[in-house]
Formats: sequence, C-alpha cells, structure tokens
Amino acid sequence: MLETVDSPKDLKKIPLENLQSLCDEIRDYLIDILSARGGHVGPNLGAVEATVALHWVFDSPHDKLIFDVSHQSYTHKILTGRKQLMRDLHITREINGYTDFSESEHDHFRMGHTSTSISLASGLAKARDLKGENFNIVAFIGDGSLSGGEAFEGLNIGANLKSNFIVVANDNEFSIDTNSGGLYSNLAHLRQTNGDWTNNYFKALGYEYFYIENGNSVVDLVKAFEAVKDCSRPVVVHIHTQKGKGLPYAEADPTSWHYSAPFNKSTGVAESHKTDQAYESTAAITNDFLDKELSLNKKSLVLIPGAPGLGADLKKKYPSQYVDTGIAEVQAVAMASGAAKAGAKPYLFVNSPFVQRAYDQTIIDWALQETPAVMLVSWAGISDNDYTHVGMYDIAMLSNVPGLTYLAPASADEYRQMLEFSRSFDKPLAIRLGLGNLPKTPDPKIASGENEKIEYGKSVVTKRGSKVAIFGLGDYFEKAQSVDKILREKGFNPTLINPRFINVLDFELLDEIAKNHSVIVTLENGIIDGGFGQKIAGYYSRKSKNIKVFNFGAKTEFINNEPFANIMDRYHLNPEQIVEDIKPALENPALENES
Amino acid sequence: MLETVDSPKDLKKIPLENLQSLCDEIRDYLIDILSARGGHVGPNLGAVEATVALHWVFDSPHDKLIFDVSHQSYTHKILTGRKQLMRDLHITREINGYTDFSESEHDHFRMGHTSTSISLASGLAKARDLKGENFNIVAFIGDGSLSGGEAFEGLNIGANLKSNFIVVANDNEFSIDTNSGGLYSNLAHLRQTNGDWTNNYFKALGYEYFYIENGNSVVDLVKAFEAVKDCSRPVVVHIHTQKGKGLPYAEADPTSWHYSAPFNKSTGVAESHKTDQAYESTAAITNDFLDKELSLNKKSLVLIPGAPGLGADLKKKYPSQYVDTGIAEVQAVAMASGAAKAGAKPYLFVNSPFVQRAYDQTIIDWALQETPAVMLVSWAGISDNDYTHVGMYDIAMLSNVPGLTYLAPASADEYRQMLEFSRSFDKPLAIRLGLGNLPKTPDPKIASGENEKIEYGKSVVTKRGSKVAIFGLGDYFEKAQSVDKILREKGFNPTLINPRFINVLDFELLDEIAKNHSVIVTLENGIIDGGFGQKIAGYYSRKSKNIKVFNFGAKTEFINNEPFANIMDRYHLNPEQIVEDIKPALENPALENES
Repeated sequence: MLETVDSPKDLKKIPLENLQSLCDEIRDYLIDILSARGGHVGPNLGAVEATVALHWVFDSPHDKLIFDVSHQSYTHKILTGRKQLMRDLHITREINGYTDFSESEHDHFRMGHTSTSISLASGLAKARDLKGENFNIVAFIGDGSLSGGEAFEGLNIGANLKSNFIVVANDNEFSIDTNSGGLYSNLAHLRQTNGDWTNNYFKALGYEYFYIENGNSVVDLVKAFEAVKDCSRPVVVHIHTQKGKGLPYAEADPTSWHYSAPFNKSTGVAESHKTDQAYESTAAITNDFLDKELSLNKKSLVLIPGAPGLGADLKKKYPSQYVDTGIAEVQAVAMASGAAKAGAKPYLFVNSPFVQRAYDQTIIDWALQETPAVMLVSWAGISDNDYTHVGMYDIAMLSNVPGLTYLAPASADEYRQMLEFSRSFDKPLAIRLGLGNLPKTPDPKIASGENEKIEYGKSVVTKRGSKVAIFGLGDYFEKAQSVDKILREKGFNPTLINPRFINVLDFELLDEIAKNHSVIVTLENGIIDGGFGQKIAGYYSRKSKNIKVFNFGAKTEFINNEPFANIMDRYHLNPEQIVEDIKPALENPALENES
Repeated sequence: MLETVDSPKDLKKIPLENLQSLCDEIRDYLIDILSARGGHVGPNLGAVEATVALHWVFDSPHDKLIFDVSHQSYTHKILTGRKQLMRDLHITREINGYTDFSESEHDHFRMGHTSTSISLASGLAKARDLKGENFNIVAFIGDGSLSGGEAFEGLNIGANLKSNFIVVANDNEFSIDTNSGGLYSNLAHLRQTNGDWTNNYFKALGYEYFYIENGNSVVDLVKAFEAVKDCSRPVVVHIHTQKGKGLPYAEADPTSWHYSAPFNKSTGVAESHKTDQAYESTAAITNDFLDKELSLNKKSLVLIPGAPGLGADLKKKYPSQYVDTGIAEVQAVAMASGAAKAGAKPYLFVNSPFVQRAYDQTIIDWALQETPAVMLVSWAGISDNDYTHVGMYDIAMLSNVPGLTYLAPASADEYRQMLEFSRSFDKPLAIRLGLGNLPKTPDPKIASGENEKIEYGKSVVTKRGSKVAIFGLGDYFEKAQSVDKILREKGFNPTLINPRFINVLDFELLDEIAKNHSVIVTLENGIIDGGFGQKIAGYYSRKSKNIKVFNFGAKTEFINNEPFANIMDRYHLNPEQIVEDIKPALENPALENES
C-alpha cells in the first residue's frame, strides 16, 4: 500500500480499516531506513500510527501539524512526498532528520530543539485568528519535551486562545518511575486511571482533555482526532504510545535506542566507531573522573539535562549524587548553582547547541552568584550537523559572561588536568569539549611535564619563535600545529601557543609577543564574532602598531548538513589555506623591519 | 515595637498576639521609605505579614528563605539588621532593592530576575540532603513569577525531593480575569473554592497543598507555616494577599503601583521627570507608531512579556492585537515568531537585561525561521542600576545571532525611520533603545533630509575628514559628537560616523576610511567583548596595516548600584578621557605619513 502513497491526499484514499496495515508497512520501511542510516529509532517507531492518523484526519498543509523537536517526523516526511528521499537520510543534503520549511510546505518550522512546538503553534493560532482564517493547528509533543519551561509557557498562554488549538501529548513513558514527583508522576497516574486521575495537569491549565490508552492503534487515534477536529478551544489529546515499537530490543531499552548509529536490524547491534589510537574519548575521561570524584567526595553531584545514556552507570552507582532534570537546561544550571552555594560540588552537562537554552540562568543564577559549579560543554565545534545541532556559537556566548571562566583543552591529558583544576577552583567554570575525541598528547611541553598544571589565566607556549605567532584554541591546537609545520617548511620560525583559557587573555604573553611578531593567527572552532580571536584583535588593535591579526573560525550564519570538507574550504580552515591567507603579510619585509 | 527589632531573634520575642501591630508599624515604615525613595510599592506592601510570619516561625539564616525576584524583600531586610540602611535605599551603595549575599547572611542569592527561586532552592535542598544537614528551605514566589518556565521546571524537579521543600505561592491576583485560561485561571478557581478546586496545578505536580485565604493575617500565616515547618516532603502554601495593601490608591490600581518613583503618600501623586527639550521619549515614539500600525494593519500585533503599564492604552484600544504573555520572554519570542510565520507582523518588547531569558528562542525559534518579527529592546546601556538590571550585555548577545539584524538609532527622528523600515523588512529585526530618551535630531545630515531613510547595511557619514574616524553607535553618537568637538578644537578634522547597524558592517565605507585614516575610535553603550567595536577591530586588524582601532565601552563584569560618574570614569567613557587615550596615536607622525 505504501507504494501508492506519496501525499496526504493519497493517504486519505485508503479506508480506515486498512490503515493499520499501512502503518505496519511504514514501520518496516522506517526500520530499513533507521538500520541503514541511523537516526532517532525509538521516537519514530512509536509515532507511526499517530502521524498516519493525523494526516488521515487533518488536511495538511491547510491544517498545520507542528512536530516538537521533529525527531519523530520521519513518518510525516514519508507521507508528504519524501518517501524516496528518506532512504538517503544522512547522505544527501536534500533531506534533514528534522522538519524544515525549505524542504516541504508541510513543514512549518525548522525544528530540532525541545519544547518549542506549543509556543510556536500559539503564534500561528494568534495570526490565524487576526486574519480571520479557519484551520486546525496541532502541536505534537512528546512527554520528554513537556518538562521544558517553554512547553509550560506555551500551554499557559495557549490556554487563553478562544479558538482551535490542539496539543497532542505523546506519552511514551519517558519516566516510568511512578514514585518520582512532578509531571511524569501525573502522566503515570493519568495512564493508570485511563485519564481519570484528579489533579490533571492539563485540565489545571485550562485545557479540555482526552486520553487514548492505545496510542499505537490507528483506529483509536483517528476517532480521537476526529472528535477534536475543528474544535473551537484549546484541547489536549493525551496518547499513550510504545517507544521503539516494532523492534523488541528497542522496546525493552528505550533509553539506549532513543538514537542509534546504523545497526543490524535482526541482532540490534549498532555499528561501532573505531577510535584512532592517537585519540582518546572525552566521554570516557569524564566518566572516569566523575566515578572517582563522586566516590571520594560525597558532596559532589552530577546534573544531566536529558542526555539519554550519558552517565547511566554513574546513575546506578551514585543515585543520590545524580540528578536527571529531564530536557530542562534551565533547571539544571540553576539547581547546580544552588547546590554549589550550599557547599556541594556540581558537575553539569550541557551540549554546545543547547547552552543558549539556559543563558539567563548561566549569567544571573550562576555567574552572578559566584558559585563553583562546573559546566562540561560537549558537541562544541563546527560540524556537518543540521541547523539546530551545530555547536559553533557557544564561545561567543560563554566567553562574554562576566565572572565565568571558560577553558578549552587541546589534548586528553590537558582535559584531565582541567578536571583536576576544577575540583578546587572556587568560581564558575566551564570546559569546552568537542564532538568526541581529543589527541592524547599533542603538546610536547605538556608531555614532558613542563607546564602540566593549569595556572589561572596562563597560556602555554609550545614553541618560541618570531615574526608569526599561532594561537590554536582547544581542539584547534592540532590545526595550529599543522600550520606551524607548513610554515617551518617554508623557512619561518613560528611561535606556537595553546591558550587554554578562552576568555582570560594572558596579557603578559601578548605584550611579550608584540615585541618580535608582526603576524598573529588565531584559530578557533566556532564563530569568529564575539569569540577568542576578536578579543586578541581588539587588544593588539589598540596597543601595537604593525601587528596584523588574522582571526580564523566560522562565519556568523546557520549551516545545515553541509559536507565537512565544504565548510572547511569555505571558511579557509584548511592549514594550507590559512598559510595562503597570511602569506602576503609574512612576505612584507617592511613589517619585519619595524618589528 | 519596630524599634526593638533588629534581627529575627528580636522578632521572636514578640508574642503572636502583637505581631499584627508590628506588621502595621512595618507597613508605615515601608510607606515612608517607598514614598521618599521610590521602589516596588505593591509587592512590598502586600508581603509584610508573610515575611514577618516566615521570620517568626523559621530560624533564618539556619533555615533558608529565598525571595523570588526579591522585589518584595524590604520587610525581610528590615527584620534582618538593615532597618536604618533601608532609609537610604537608592542613595547608598550599601543597600540594594533586591537580596544580595554580600549584604547579609540572611540573603542567599543575588536575585532580581523572575521565576528563579524554586530552582535555586531545589539546589540548596539537594546539597543539604547530600551533606546530611537538616534545615527548612522556603521559596517565596509571587503569582507573576509562576508563569515563567523556570518556575515550572523548578516545581517539576523539586517535586522529586524526598525531604523538606516549602514553596510559598504569594497570590496577589496578578491576573484578575477569571475568563483567561492557564495557570491564573487555576489560581482564581482555587481562591474561589478556598483551595478545594479539582485539578489543582500544584497537586498535579506532586505537591502537598495548603490554602490560606487571608494572606495578610499574620496569625493565619503563622499557623500555616508552623504546620509545614520541618515537613519532610515538598509542599506548597498558597496564600492570597493584597498587593499594595495600606495605600488605597495602590490597592485600587496595582498595575500602576507595582513600581513607583518617589511619591506624595497622602495624594498618591508620583514625582515626574521633566524631559529636556532637546530629547524625546522613546516610549512615546513607540506608542505613537504602534497606535497607527495596529489601527492600519489588522495583522499587526504587540507582545509584552510582563512589563506593567507599558502599552496599557494599546491593550484597551486593540485587545485582540495585544498579547500579554506574563513574565515569560520565552513564550513572547516564540509566539511572535510563530505569528510572523503565519503572516502577522508582531512587535515584541524585551528589556535589555532580560534578552538572555529567551536566547534559544531568539536563535532557534526566531532567527532560524527567518520570520519578520520586530524586537524592541529597552533599558539598553551602561547604568547605575543593580546587578540584574544593568542592560549592557545585549549587544554581545543579539549582534552575534545569525540572520538577526540589530539596529541602534542615534536620535528620535532616526528611531521613527527605523520603525518605518521595520514595517516592510521581511527578516528578523531588533532595535536597541536606551533608558528612555533620545536626542531629537543630533545628526545634521538626517536633519537636512539627506540619508534620512534607512538603507540596509549602510552607515551615515556625518562629517568627512581624515586621520581619525569616530563611530558613535546608537545613543553614543552623541558622545562621538563631543569627542569630535574636542578634536576639532585641537586642530584635527575627524570623520564622524553613525553606524545605524550594530551587526552589519558597512565594508565599503570601512575600506574607504582605511585610505586616509590611521586612528579608528568605536564608542558603544555596552560591553566591548563580542560587541560592535571588536568586529571593526577584527576587520581592520587583518586588512590594513598602520590602523589603530580603539574600542570604547564597558568591561565584561557585573556592576551594581555604582554612581554613574564613577562608571564613566572607570571605563574612560568621558569625551575628554577618550581624546586623552587616543592622543598618542594621533600625535605619531609615522602613522600619518604611512597612511
């Protein structure tokens, strides 16, 4: 049947009694795609029936379906003309793992961060009402997203609409611990009572409420959606679905199977990436450190805002020292700071693309309080990821927060040193980690034991030369080494610097360098604007004549699924290009004489 | 009695039956302070009894009282040794209108932004439990703060605590429209039923719940707090209080009396500030523009996240085009973007110190969606305000958001032009406004009609000279004019530039200037790091030799109630200091010859 369906119009031709069979076909198709390409396994397999029912009942794109995060939107894509394209997911730039208005008229937003759908939908509804138009608006949101403050704010204000506004709460038992308080406990009570529990969260916020126990029965869902279609007030349809449905191993372990690399669909064994012997996993270093720290220091604490799988062993081993805040960075940052205020030592995980989700808390609840929490920022760096998961903006954000010190390790050894440094550092501290691995020991000075320990505000000079100095920040120290190598081959004798501190300039070193260098190169794995290099440029620009500063990094723009080689090329971030760009300045003898 | 009370210890000596009289004395004392010094009138007058009861029942600082925003903490300050100091509020730097851990051991955090108390308190509770300590933790939060996402996230995770955790929800009927949905409707239902309404928001989130109808009866409150003291699980005490209690005019109009300048306490007439004839109020310009726009374009829309009073007339005149999201910037930004996506033209108000509260929404829900909403950023600039209300960080934030254009008007006329420009601009746009007023027409070129209209990415050159060029951004164009004047008196012929665009550099102009200028001065009313001037420095640093760029602005640090003259002096922002700083570069003939 799936062969005949390339649009919601095609779908509507299929009679209700055949819809479940179509769902089964779609699920098989999804399993093929997910096992071959990797992706959000659990969320997509759980949402097949709901998506089919939505498209069967509603009239997209006239009616607007907004998928929260949209990591569960593969079925939606399959039903809206992108069935073939989905086979090339993660290969072609024409298709994304999330909705994108550039991809289809059935996608209204570029989604990817959690908890945003209800607020965005409330705006669509407000505009519709102002324009006197008439259509259905459906926000489809998973229980994991309901714990984010934006979802609450959206529900709260959405409740004021006196018009059609439908929220489908896709409850796949994100939390199954019915003893835990809060919203998840309320959802559990509602499931247990077929929706009849007193003190219903959604009703308390003013919504009409419907509960569908079998959220993987397309017929039940069609009935429910038909009942609320064209309603003229805010309603919540709470549906209970099975995450990972159709893959027994994914059903049994929904946390591990939230997202997966390509896998063997019969065995459920995912591809593993071999780590180059010269590199070490930052996650492993972090885990080792925390395992020791949580065991030695009973006042230490780990806070994880919804990163499935990360630190799962720590959770088992140190349950009272481990706080999963759900996908709620705001709470994670504020709670960490509060705990640090009262004498605990909190380690907090945030991914770079999500740093901005708790920016006020980082500034006001944390930095202003001067509390010694430690934020570990992962996924940082220019990448071929989608719009909403590229982590190249965090330097501009965190390095300009008053009172927050931001570190960037250049190697695995140095990361261990920084973690050690964090234990006794008594002010707000963040450490920037890349997409997974760091060179074991790229810095000969550190390898030799010299400058091993982190000293506040001090950079490490790995090689002392003249005329040209290269600052390679964090994981771009490796790139600085490559630039250094090429320049040496050309007869230059560069000074090579590992800054270590992103936002604490080593002025003593900068002044010293000004004496016999005329070209400064800064390399950072993020946008140039507001970053490390511009601070160096700003400093020299005022202080010293005849010094040219070349800032290398990313442009301030959104990038999306762009092949990595393309990006490097466009930003002139290949070592050969860097050398090419600075060559004219190096070859100007006037500058050399003046230095 | 108040004379005998200088600490919670003194307070506890007063018998329960005399507490209400003490409250009356405190209220009189508060009215004296508020009328003489200005401040948060309504919130403080409403919270007298609750604060007295908290300190009478609990044992601060052993028990921790966390006041949300802490704009209602004057009674707390009076009871904790700061009674005399409070008379000098807004005069001495020794006391702040908000809690501050540097001020007293009874203040645990530097508060000032809304909705943070529960999350911070949950961190204190977690640390307490890890350390095996035993004390009460009370978050005191007003209903206006409960609509913020952080308060929800805090309640949600706080519910998981299996230990003492007390939330006092101070309900002063922030919203009295019982027809509006959402949380306020739930609070209204709870008030109407003496706490017995089904679908209780707090119970739904897993809290034990108590309702106190007369939240201005200190005896009732004492009983309630004694009942929950030393409890071993999360509870909410919902108290119904009268905002502005004791001042009939403040009780009658709580919105206007949320905050007031000094006022005559018998008549209730507040001091008014005379506006210099050469200046115009930006608020008046905005209101005039929106009044026309909302009337002409029925698809236009105003969104206000909880700025009491602002736009109140517009609300009455255009109720369907006016959305008050409560103190919920997150929702305001996302809803505005959603509405713009569906063809509305939203104008959104955010104050500079709160821009960061919706940073992920600004980037992902708005800029990435390319939707033509307009954000008006008020309160921007270096100021003598408290920590949490200084608006000098927004340039670094908003100017580095991909796809967002950030404008800074230098005059009232130019602001009107920018508003006109915003009407047809089809991408995300923000306009930066200062603390109230703009010069009417500082720019002769604009006054003469030349360059009047805003052209995308184009700066305005007001005077063409050589050797030194001065970029005066937004309201600092006036400062640039002063610097220009002094330099002219010294025989220089500066080029004077009004950039208009904070984050779109006018490269053509920059290249032209490079030809015959050796000193560039950038002036901006915010932190230098990540700002406008560093972008100029970064550009020239790489392009041109022998150009020195001097960035003037604020240091990346927190400042608090610092006298304005001090700040200007420390940052070298007086025109004479600026000239002094750049003089050595101007007097270097080598530079001139090389240019």
